[in-house]
Amino acid sequence: MDSPTPNSQGREALFTTLYGAGYRCCDLPGARLEAVLSQERPIDLIELEALCDAVGWNRRPLRRVRKALQHSLLRVGLWRHDDRLPRLVGFARCTGDGVVEATVWDVAVHPLYQGAGLGRQLMDYVISNLQERGVERVTLYADPGVVEFYSHQGWELEPQQRRCAFWYAP
Amino acid sequence: MDSPTPNSQGREALFTTLYGAGYRCCDLPGARLEAVLSQERPIDLIELEALCDAVGWNRRPLRRVRKALQHSLLRVGLWRHDDRLPRLVGFARCTGDGVVEATVWDVAVHPLYQGAGLGRQLMDYVISNLQERGVERVTLYADPGVVEFYSHQGWELEPQQRRCAFWYAP
Repeated sequence: MDSPTPNSQGREALFTTLYGAGYRCCDLPGARLEAVLSQERPIDLIELEALCDAVGWNRRPLRRVRKALQHSLLRVGLWRHDDRLPRLVGFARCTGDGVVEATVWDVAVHPLYQGAGLGRQLMDYVISNLQERGVERVTLYADPGVVEFYSHQGWELEPQQRRCAFWYAP
Repeated sequence: MDSPTPNSQGREALFTTLYGAGYRCCDLPGARLEAVLSQERPIDLIELEALCDAVGWNRRPLRRVRKALQHSLLRVGLWRHDDRLPRLVGFARCTGDGVVEATVWDVAVHPLYQGAGLGRQLMDYVISNLQERGVERVTLYADPGVVEFYSHQGWELEPQQRRCAFWYAP
Protein backbone atom coordinates (compact mmCIF):
# COMPACT_ATOMS: atom_id res chain seq x y z
CA MET A 1 0.00 0.00 0.00
CA ASP A 2 1.32 3.40 -0.96
CA SER A 3 -0.95 5.45 1.33
CA PRO A 4 0.96 7.60 3.78
CA THR A 5 1.46 6.24 7.28
CA PRO A 6 -0.33 8.14 10.06
CA ASN A 7 3.07 9.54 10.98
CA SER A 8 3.78 10.99 7.57
CA GLN A 9 0.23 12.32 7.41
CA GLY A 10 0.69 14.09 10.74
CA ARG A 11 3.99 15.44 9.55
CA GLU A 12 2.50 16.78 6.36
CA ALA A 13 -0.27 18.45 8.35
CA LEU A 14 2.32 20.02 10.65
CA PHE A 15 4.39 21.29 7.72
CA THR A 16 1.30 22.68 5.98
CA THR A 17 0.38 24.51 9.17
CA LEU A 18 3.87 25.91 9.58
CA TYR A 19 4.73 26.68 5.95
CA GLY A 20 1.51 26.81 3.94
CA ALA A 21 0.30 24.46 1.23
CA GLY A 22 3.01 25.21 -1.33
CA TYR A 23 6.04 24.39 0.83
CA ARG A 24 8.96 22.31 -0.47
CA CYS A 25 11.41 20.29 1.63
CA CYS A 26 15.03 20.75 0.61
CA ASP A 27 17.23 17.91 -0.45
CA LEU A 28 20.03 17.68 2.11
CA PRO A 29 21.42 14.14 1.98
CA GLY A 30 23.18 13.05 5.14
CA ALA A 31 22.36 16.25 7.04
CA ARG A 32 20.82 16.17 10.49
CA LEU A 33 18.84 19.31 9.90
CA GLU A 34 15.80 19.81 7.72
CA ALA A 35 15.28 22.87 5.54
CA VAL A 36 12.00 23.98 4.04
CA LEU A 37 11.13 26.54 1.35
CA SER A 38 7.91 28.49 1.68
CA GLN A 39 6.29 31.46 -0.04
CA GLU A 40 3.51 31.60 2.53
CA ARG A 41 5.05 31.53 6.00
CA PRO A 42 5.17 35.17 7.11
CA ILE A 43 8.63 36.72 7.32
CA ASP A 44 9.49 38.35 10.62
CA LEU A 45 11.25 41.64 9.83
CA ILE A 46 13.64 41.41 12.78
CA GLU A 47 14.66 37.90 11.75
CA LEU A 48 15.14 39.07 8.15
CA GLU A 49 17.29 41.95 9.36
CA ALA A 50 19.46 39.51 11.33
CA LEU A 51 19.86 37.38 8.19
CA CYS A 52 20.85 40.44 6.13
CA ASP A 53 23.35 41.42 8.85
CA ALA A 54 24.83 37.91 8.70
CA VAL A 55 25.42 38.17 4.94
CA GLY A 56 26.85 41.67 5.35
CA TRP A 57 24.18 43.84 3.72
CA ASN A 58 23.49 47.43 4.61
CA ARG A 59 20.54 47.94 6.91
CA ARG A 60 17.38 49.60 5.66
CA PRO A 61 14.66 51.19 7.79
CA LEU A 62 12.23 48.41 8.78
CA ARG A 63 9.24 50.53 7.77
CA ARG A 64 10.56 50.67 4.21
CA VAL A 65 11.45 46.97 4.18
CA ARG A 66 7.90 46.11 5.27
CA LYS A 67 6.42 48.18 2.45
CA ALA A 68 8.85 46.72 -0.09
CA LEU A 69 7.88 43.18 0.94
CA GLN A 70 4.19 44.01 0.78
CA HIS A 71 4.61 45.28 -2.76
CA SER A 72 6.69 42.34 -3.92
CA LEU A 73 5.26 39.70 -6.22
CA LEU A 74 6.78 36.81 -4.30
CA ARG A 75 8.58 36.47 -0.95
CA VAL A 76 10.33 33.19 -0.29
CA GLY A 77 11.73 32.08 3.05
CA LEU A 78 14.21 29.26 3.52
CA TRP A 79 13.55 27.83 6.98
CA ARG A 80 15.59 25.58 9.19
CA HIS A 81 12.79 23.36 10.32
CA ASP A 82 11.78 23.15 13.95
CA ASP A 83 8.42 21.74 15.05
CA ARG A 84 7.76 24.80 17.16
CA LEU A 85 9.87 27.66 15.87
CA PRO A 86 11.43 27.43 12.39
CA ARG A 87 14.39 29.74 11.90
CA LEU A 88 14.83 31.92 8.80
CA VAL A 89 18.16 30.98 7.18
CA GLY A 90 17.55 32.17 3.61
CA PHE A 91 15.45 34.56 1.62
CA ALA A 92 14.62 35.85 -1.85
CA ARG A 93 11.95 38.11 -3.28
CA CYS A 94 10.66 39.08 -6.70
CA THR A 95 9.04 42.14 -8.15
CA GLY A 96 7.48 42.44 -11.57
CA ASP A 97 4.17 42.35 -13.36
CA GLY A 98 3.91 38.60 -12.78
CA VAL A 99 2.82 38.07 -16.36
CA VAL A 100 5.53 39.07 -18.80
CA GLU A 101 8.43 39.53 -16.44
CA ALA A 102 9.76 39.29 -12.90
CA THR A 103 13.01 40.40 -11.27
CA VAL A 104 14.70 38.59 -8.39
CA TRP A 105 16.14 40.64 -5.53
CA ASP A 106 17.79 40.11 -2.16
CA VAL A 107 18.84 36.47 -2.49
CA ALA A 108 20.50 35.48 0.77
CA VAL A 109 21.55 32.24 2.47
CA HIS A 110 22.97 32.46 5.98
CA PRO A 111 26.75 31.80 5.87
CA LEU A 112 26.36 28.85 8.27
CA TYR A 113 24.07 27.15 5.77
CA GLN A 114 25.97 27.89 2.57
CA GLY A 115 27.75 25.25 0.49
CA ALA A 116 25.03 22.60 0.76
CA GLY A 117 23.12 23.48 -2.41
CA LEU A 118 20.42 25.44 -0.61
CA GLY A 119 20.91 28.56 -2.71
CA ARG A 120 20.33 26.56 -5.88
CA GLN A 121 17.20 24.97 -4.40
CA LEU A 122 15.96 28.37 -3.29
CA MET A 123 16.33 29.68 -6.85
CA ASP A 124 14.65 26.54 -8.28
CA TYR A 125 11.70 27.17 -5.99
CA VAL A 126 11.49 30.82 -7.03
CA ILE A 127 11.56 29.91 -10.73
CA SER A 128 8.94 27.15 -10.28
CA ASN A 129 6.61 29.62 -8.65
CA LEU A 130 7.09 32.17 -11.41
CA GLN A 131 6.65 29.49 -14.08
CA GLU A 132 3.32 28.48 -12.54
CA ARG A 133 2.18 32.06 -13.07
CA GLY A 134 3.27 31.93 -16.70
CA VAL A 135 6.04 34.55 -16.42
CA GLU A 136 8.02 34.66 -19.69
CA ARG A 137 11.28 36.13 -18.49
CA VAL A 138 13.02 36.43 -15.14
CA THR A 139 15.90 38.82 -14.61
CA LEU A 140 18.37 39.61 -11.86
CA TYR A 141 21.47 41.67 -11.21
CA ALA A 142 24.34 39.48 -10.06
CA ASP A 143 27.19 40.79 -7.95
CA PRO A 144 30.63 39.76 -9.26
CA GLY A 145 30.99 37.02 -6.61
CA VAL A 146 27.83 35.20 -7.63
CA VAL A 147 27.86 35.56 -11.42
CA GLU A 148 29.15 32.00 -11.73
CA PHE A 149 26.54 30.70 -9.29
CA TYR A 150 23.80 31.91 -11.65
CA SER A 151 25.45 31.01 -14.94
CA HIS A 152 25.88 27.43 -13.70
CA GLN A 153 22.14 27.28 -13.12
CA GLY A 154 21.32 28.13 -16.70
CA TRP A 155 20.92 31.89 -16.41
CA GLU A 156 22.05 33.73 -19.53
CA LEU A 157 24.44 36.58 -18.81
CA GLU A 158 23.63 39.69 -20.82
CA PRO A 159 21.95 37.96 -23.74
CA GLN A 160 22.07 40.03 -26.94
CA GLN A 161 24.74 42.19 -25.29
CA ARG A 162 22.17 43.77 -23.04
CA ARG A 163 23.78 45.81 -20.29
CA CYS A 164 22.28 46.74 -17.00
CA ALA A 165 22.00 50.36 -15.96
CA PHE A 166 21.31 51.77 -12.51
CA TRP A 167 20.01 55.12 -11.34
CA TYR A 168 20.38 55.92 -7.64
CA ALA A 169 18.32 58.47 -5.73
CA PRO A 170 20.44 61.52 -4.89
CA MET B 1 0.04 90.57 -13.83
CA ASP B 2 1.18 86.95 -13.87
CA SER B 3 -2.25 85.36 -13.55
CA PRO B 4 -3.09 83.07 -16.45
CA THR B 5 -5.20 84.50 -19.24
CA PRO B 6 -8.62 82.94 -19.72
CA ASN B 7 -7.13 81.17 -22.70
CA SER B 8 -4.32 79.53 -20.79
CA GLN B 9 -6.75 78.61 -18.02
CA GLY B 10 -9.02 76.92 -20.53
CA ARG B 11 -6.03 75.21 -22.03
CA GLU B 12 -4.87 73.90 -18.66
CA ALA B 13 -8.36 72.60 -17.96
CA LEU B 14 -8.42 70.87 -21.34
CA PHE B 15 -4.99 69.29 -20.76
CA THR B 16 -5.98 68.14 -17.27
CA THR B 17 -9.12 66.55 -18.72
CA LEU B 18 -7.17 64.81 -21.45
CA TYR B 19 -4.03 63.82 -19.55
CA GLY B 20 -4.77 63.92 -15.82
CA ALA B 21 -3.41 66.29 -13.19
CA GLY B 22 0.23 65.18 -13.36
CA TYR B 23 0.81 65.76 -17.08
CA ARG B 24 3.94 67.48 -18.38
CA CYS B 25 4.30 69.32 -21.70
CA CYS B 26 7.47 68.45 -23.58
CA ASP B 27 10.02 71.01 -24.58
CA LEU B 28 10.08 71.07 -28.40
CA PRO B 29 11.47 74.44 -29.47
CA GLY B 30 10.47 75.45 -32.96
CA ALA B 31 8.23 72.47 -33.54
CA ARG B 32 4.72 72.82 -34.83
CA LEU B 33 3.47 69.87 -32.83
CA GLU B 34 2.93 69.60 -29.09
CA ALA B 35 3.85 66.51 -27.09
CA VAL B 36 2.59 65.68 -23.61
CA LEU B 37 3.69 63.13 -21.01
CA SER B 38 1.07 61.52 -18.81
CA GLN B 39 0.90 58.67 -16.34
CA GLU B 40 -2.87 58.92 -16.10
CA ARG B 41 -4.34 58.98 -19.58
CA PRO B 42 -5.40 55.39 -20.27
CA ILE B 43 -3.37 53.52 -22.83
CA ASP B 44 -5.33 51.94 -25.65
CA LEU B 45 -3.90 48.47 -26.25
CA ILE B 46 -4.37 48.57 -30.00
CA GLU B 47 -2.59 51.92 -30.19
CA LEU B 48 0.23 50.55 -28.01
CA GLU B 49 0.54 47.53 -30.29
CA ALA B 50 0.84 49.80 -33.32
CA LEU B 51 3.60 51.75 -31.54
CA CYS B 52 5.47 48.53 -30.70
CA ASP B 53 5.09 47.41 -34.33
CA ALA B 54 6.55 50.74 -35.46
CA VAL B 55 9.68 50.27 -33.31
CA GLY B 56 10.00 46.66 -34.45
CA TRP B 57 9.14 44.72 -31.31
CA ASN B 58 7.65 41.25 -31.25
CA ARG B 59 3.92 41.14 -30.67
CA ARG B 60 2.50 39.76 -27.46
CA PRO B 61 -1.06 38.55 -26.88
CA LEU B 62 -3.15 41.59 -25.93
CA ARG B 63 -4.65 39.76 -22.96
CA ARG B 64 -1.18 39.33 -21.46
CA VAL B 65 -0.19 42.91 -22.26
CA ARG B 66 -3.32 44.17 -20.48
CA LYS B 67 -2.48 42.15 -17.36
CA ALA B 68 1.16 43.24 -17.45
CA LEU B 69 0.10 46.91 -17.62
CA GLN B 70 -2.39 46.45 -14.79
CA HIS B 71 0.35 44.99 -12.61
CA SER B 72 2.91 47.66 -13.44
CA LEU B 73 3.86 50.32 -10.95
CA LEU B 74 3.80 53.13 -13.50
CA ARG B 75 2.64 53.42 -17.11
CA VAL B 76 3.68 56.54 -18.99
CA GLY B 77 2.33 57.61 -22.35
CA LEU B 78 3.93 60.21 -24.62
CA TRP B 79 1.13 61.82 -26.58
CA ARG B 80 1.14 63.94 -29.69
CA HIS B 81 -1.38 66.48 -28.54
CA ASP B 82 -4.67 66.93 -30.31
CA ASP B 83 -7.61 68.72 -28.72
CA ARG B 84 -9.90 65.83 -29.53
CA LEU B 85 -7.80 62.72 -30.04
CA PRO B 86 -4.20 62.68 -28.79
CA ARG B 87 -2.06 60.04 -30.48
CA LEU B 88 0.28 57.71 -28.58
CA VAL B 89 3.82 58.25 -29.90
CA GLY B 90 5.86 56.98 -26.95
CA PHE B 91 5.63 54.72 -23.95
CA ALA B 92 7.47 53.39 -20.90
CA ARG B 93 6.44 51.35 -17.89
CA CYS B 94 7.95 50.38 -14.55
CA THR B 95 7.59 47.43 -12.26
CA GLY B 96 8.99 47.15 -8.75
CA ASP B 97 8.03 47.48 -5.13
CA GLY B 98 7.82 51.26 -5.53
CA VAL B 99 9.72 51.76 -2.28
CA VAL B 100 13.23 50.39 -2.54
CA GLU B 101 13.46 49.73 -6.24
CA ALA B 102 11.81 49.99 -9.63
CA THR B 103 12.72 48.63 -13.06
CA VAL B 104 11.98 50.39 -16.35
CA TRP B 105 10.69 48.33 -19.28
CA ASP B 106 9.43 48.82 -22.80
CA VAL B 107 10.74 52.32 -23.50
CA ALA B 108 9.60 53.28 -26.99
CA VAL B 109 9.41 56.44 -29.06
CA HIS B 110 7.81 56.22 -32.50
CA PRO B 111 10.53 56.51 -35.19
CA LEU B 112 8.82 59.58 -36.70
CA TYR B 113 9.25 61.40 -33.39
CA GLN B 114 12.79 60.34 -32.53
CA GLY B 115 15.76 62.69 -32.53
CA ALA B 116 13.98 65.61 -30.86
CA GLY B 117 14.89 64.79 -27.26
CA LEU B 118 11.53 63.20 -26.46
CA GLY B 119 13.10 59.95 -25.21
CA ARG B 120 15.20 61.88 -22.69
CA GLN B 121 12.15 63.84 -21.53
CA LEU B 122 10.16 60.63 -21.23
CA MET B 123 12.88 59.13 -18.98
CA ASP B 124 13.07 62.37 -16.93
CA TYR B 125 9.34 62.14 -16.35
CA VAL B 126 9.59 58.48 -15.31
CA ILE B 127 12.41 59.22 -12.86
CA SER B 128 10.57 62.25 -11.40
CA ASN B 129 7.55 60.09 -10.72
CA LEU B 130 9.63 57.40 -9.05
CA GLN B 131 11.53 60.00 -7.01
CA GLU B 132 8.25 61.39 -5.70
CA ARG B 133 7.48 57.92 -4.36
CA GLY B 134 10.89 57.80 -2.66
CA VAL B 135 12.30 54.93 -4.72
CA GLU B 136 16.02 54.48 -3.93
CA ARG B 137 17.22 52.75 -7.04
CA VAL B 138 15.95 52.40 -10.58
CA THR B 139 17.29 49.78 -12.95
CA LEU B 140 16.89 48.84 -16.57
CA TYR B 141 18.33 46.52 -19.18
CA ALA B 142 19.65 48.44 -22.14
CA ASP B 143 19.93 46.95 -25.62
CA PRO B 144 23.32 47.56 -27.25
CA GLY B 145 21.95 50.37 -29.45
CA VAL B 146 20.69 52.45 -26.52
CA VAL B 147 23.45 51.95 -23.94
CA GLU B 148 24.91 55.34 -24.83
CA PHE B 149 21.49 57.00 -24.66
CA TYR B 150 21.21 55.96 -21.01
CA SER B 151 24.81 56.55 -19.98
CA HIS B 152 24.56 60.12 -21.31
CA GLN B 153 21.61 60.67 -19.01
CA GLY B 154 23.55 59.76 -15.91
CA TRP B 155 22.72 56.06 -15.63
CA GLU B 156 25.56 53.99 -14.24
CA LEU B 157 26.38 50.95 -16.32
CA GLU B 158 26.96 47.84 -14.21
CA PRO B 159 28.11 49.61 -11.07
CA GLN B 160 30.31 47.42 -8.87
CA GLN B 161 30.73 45.08 -11.84
CA ARG B 162 27.18 43.85 -11.48
CA ARG B 163 26.07 41.79 -14.45
CA CYS B 164 22.56 41.14 -15.59
CA ALA B 165 21.25 37.63 -15.93
CA PHE B 166 18.13 36.44 -17.73
CA TRP B 167 16.07 33.30 -17.45
CA TYR B 168 13.56 32.62 -20.24
CA ALA B 169 10.52 30.39 -19.94
CA PRO B 170 11.07 27.19 -21.93
